[in-house]
Amino acid sequence: MEITVKDLASLLNGTIEGDPDLRLTRPGKIEEGGAGVITFLGNAKYEPYLYTTSASAVLVNRNFQPKSPIQATLIRVDDVYACIALLLEKFGAPAPKSSGIHPQSIIHPSAKLGQNISIGPLTIIEEDVEIGDNVYIEAQVFIGRGSKIGADCRFLVGVKILHECSIGDRCLFHPGVVIGADGFGFAPQEDGSYKKINQIGTVVVEDDVEIGANSTVDRASIGSTILRRGVKLDNLVQIAHNVEIGENTVIAAQVGIAGSSKIGKNCQIGGQVAVAGHLKVADGTRVQGKSGVASNVKEPNQALFGYPAIDYHQFIRAHTIFKQLPELAKRLHELEKRLSKNED
Amino acid sequence: MEITVKDLASLLNGTIEGDPDLRLTRPGKIEEGGAGVITFLGNAKYEPYLYTTSASAVLVNRNFQPKSPIQATLIRVDDVYACIALLLEKFGAPAPKSSGIHPQSIIHPSAKLGQNISIGPLTIIEEDVEIGDNVYIEAQVFIGRGSKIGADCRFLVGVKILHECSIGDRCLFHPGVVIGADGFGFAPQEDGSYKKINQIGTVVVEDDVEIGANSTVDRASIGSTILRRGVKLDNLVQIAHNVEIGENTVIAAQVGIAGSSKIGKNCQIGGQVAVAGHLKVADGTRVQGKSGVASNVKEPNQALFGYPAIDYHQFIRAHTIFKQLPELAKRLHELEKRLSKNED
Amino acid sequence: MEITVKDLASLLNGTIEGDPDLRLTRPGKIEEGGAGVITFLGNAKYEPYLYTTSASAVLVNRNFQPKSPIQATLIRVDDVYACIALLLEKFGAPAPKSSGIHPQSIIHPSAKLGQNISIGPLTIIEEDVEIGDNVYIEAQVFIGRGSKIGADCRFLVGVKILHECSIGDRCLFHPGVVIGADGFGFAPQEDGSYKKINQIGTVVVEDDVEIGANSTVDRASIGSTILRRGVKLDNLVQIAHNVEIGENTVIAAQVGIAGSSKIGKNCQIGGQVAVAGHLKVADGTRVQGKSGVASNVKEPNQALFGYPAIDYHQFIRAHTIFKQLPELAKRLHELEKRLSKNED
Repeated sequence: MEITVKDLASLLNGTIEGDPDLRLTRPGKIEEGGAGVITFLGNAKYEPYLYTTSASAVLVNRNFQPKSPIQATLIRVDDVYACIALLLEKFGAPAPKSSGIHPQSIIHPSAKLGQNISIGPLTIIEEDVEIGDNVYIEAQVFIGRGSKIGADCRFLVGVKILHECSIGDRCLFHPGVVIGADGFGFAPQEDGSYKKINQIGTVVVEDDVEIGANSTVDRASIGSTILRRGVKLDNLVQIAHNVEIGENTVIAAQVGIAGSSKIGKNCQIGGQVAVAGHLKVADGTRVQGKSGVASNVKEPNQALFGYPAIDYHQFIRAHTIFKQLPELAKRLHELEKRLSKNED
Repeated sequence: MEITVKDLASLLNGTIEGDPDLRLTRPGKIEEGGAGVITFLGNAKYEPYLYTTSASAVLVNRNFQPKSPIQATLIRVDDVYACIALLLEKFGAPAPKSSGIHPQSIIHPSAKLGQNISIGPLTIIEEDVEIGDNVYIEAQVFIGRGSKIGADCRFLVGVKILHECSIGDRCLFHPGVVIGADGFGFAPQEDGSYKKINQIGTVVVEDDVEIGANSTVDRASIGSTILRRGVKLDNLVQIAHNVEIGENTVIAAQVGIAGSSKIGKNCQIGGQVAVAGHLKVADGTRVQGKSGVASNVKEPNQALFGYPAIDYHQFIRAHTIFKQLPELAKRLHELEKRLSKNED
Repeated sequence: MEITVKDLASLLNGTIEGDPDLRLTRPGKIEEGGAGVITFLGNAKYEPYLYTTSASAVLVNRNFQPKSPIQATLIRVDDVYACIALLLEKFGAPAPKSSGIHPQSIIHPSAKLGQNISIGPLTIIEEDVEIGDNVYIEAQVFIGRGSKIGADCRFLVGVKILHECSIGDRCLFHPGVVIGADGFGFAPQEDGSYKKINQIGTVVVEDDVEIGANSTVDRASIGSTILRRGVKLDNLVQIAHNVEIGENTVIAAQVGIAGSSKIGKNCQIGGQVAVAGHLKVADGTRVQGKSGVASNVKEPNQALFGYPAIDYHQFIRAHTIFKQLPELAKRLHELEKRLSKNED
């Protein structure tokens, strides 16, 4: 794949500062550069590299003001990140082609397979599974009895979808994902032991959901655990039974959402966050990484931080004083001494 | 499966308020209801749904006092959660039946298999493994050489039990569980590198243990990592080498127990908790989710919270003041000014 | 394996206090002891067991001063932990022998395999993979197209290495490890949905790296995610796209390193730590378990604690006061009352 600066700028609706005829052969990092490399300035932390990069061309935002001279040709665009997505699509590996059904897969005769399906070796499809068109299933995958898969999904190596789950269209599950394991439910017994509560519900994943490697989404005890359209989960995320995640909510790695909590639409949940069970979190909530949400979030579009999580700015201010606590305690002690002296 | 209110109430030792002849066809959620649905009121947060649910019947606790009229038939029972467990057993899918040994499993001739065993496709059983009666092993499982498995266990798809581990009766391991990987042990060398310390111990899991999807239990360096009878681990839990978890201790998702720590009996450990290495945690300890236990817990039946974890109520009180720290600092500053003024 | 105290002491360059002719048959724990057992005193917490152990011999540090009489024979050595590593090597199971290529593995004809390679059953090696000499690959492993594996590696059951990754010599990956899944990158769209940013980079793992069970290392969006020589990752660790981990850095279980962060050499990162994205962490940094690093760490060899992480000792002092906050607030209130009274 090769493209000129001029053609790329036209594609991205960008304006050129520099040589429009340069040939671009691959995307690269701004700090590594190289001839033929098209790179980008997204995060302002990387701006110093802009003035020294040996890349041929750099995508920058339309209104970017350089502080020093730049060797590379600039392409100014409305939204650098949106353009990177396009760029990586152009230069990325082509989507995998259907290679048909591998002879060493194990597919139950009752399974209904759509058109143009690819199934890798050592993959198991159980009875009464239904799979839509253009689905690409890699090696060593497992899809349990009665599960329904939409069209254009990709399940990478070792994905495990247990029985009776429902997956929408265009979902992408990374290696080791487990969908539909039992929720964690036990009834305490008088002797201190626990009796398992059967988990007879299911998991519903709507369209355009991506789930990262080794993440787990448990089946409901009764009813469904639900990931709404456009949800994105990173790696090693835990979604407990009866949870519902709203449309286009993005959840970073190692987050845990405890049982029966409902997360709204368009939320952004940072890495290692925990949300306690039976909570409602309003639409548009942003939770700073590593925070713990321990109560309902009623007002939408708030930013939260800390454990238990409070308002983002309130946390920052409180933590600033936290660091000075020993000094504060000392000042308090001084005051007490002075006041006692005065009172004498 | 269908049962009348009368028959179900009799089964659960409950009393009926409403129509004893209604036919119940499936368990459901109180907020979703539906004709034929038997549901329950467990958590008080869901009480508002009780007055509007279209479910046919609802399990409530014996002494529950409704605040408004209720359409549904009530069945009053001693312990709603215990009854749900029974209910889901009745309505749940029947326990999987032995389907025998799948011809595409790979079983070493030296393995000793009990009666009525089911082994799924692409599962591997290595040399000298012993498996008790009525064990149900799904697809793509691995059981390493010399491991001993008790009776009535269920290992779901992709479980990996490495060599020389010992598993009791009636254990249930969910997909992707790894038992017996090496503990994390290294001897620092003079050049800054690390030399691996061989992990020659094993893992012992006693009876009635359930382990959630993608959780990991490491083998001991020397001796055994031990999960005692009735332990329940949720998903993505990490149990390090030489840890011992006491009887009937319940551990929620994404918890990590560091090397050589001993957790007592009947503990309840919330999600994402960490316990540092070489600690002893007394019986009956309850640790609030996301807390970090950094020292021994000597007295039993305490509740802990925070990081490093302290007494639950002490933490709640301290965190209340934490949120007000900026105001506190301001008041301190005011006092200093006033006092200085007075002193002048 | 059997060795006399005399021979072992000579091997470890140790001095003997007690019977040099005792025969040692296996390593064991100091609290369990037993005839023929060679054990060790590493962590001072276990010293009480030293005076009661029934083990035959105990390794102690050269300068250790016992507080009571000891029955067991002592072997004094320069570094107990280094000696344990040696000891467990001597007594441990022999390294697994090559068993050749299992007939039920699936190996693409274009793959290039070195000498003396072992490949287990149901393992898949895709096209254009290259594997060095003496590599030991267990069952149910997956190595994707174009990946290059050095010599003397061990990949245990169910390891998944996706396409175009590069692994050095003597690496050990535990069960369920996923190398090269897509990084978590999305461009927000105007309608609130997210467009996937293709991840066209790769993962480079240098020599002598060990990765724990079910850990995940994502491929870079552009360029490479890099684990330098001698890095050790424990279980359930998440390494995001474009991260770089420096030489001989050790990372405990359930840690998450967010995208594009660079961790220096010889760092020690405790369990459940999070490092935010786009940060630089200096060489020799030690981060206490469960801390959250939220800003660059510029000075090497610092110890950090808390969330957001601050200097270790500053955190300890601040946390000491944190616990007393309710009392502090009360004292402040008292002062205000007293001062107001004085001012009247």
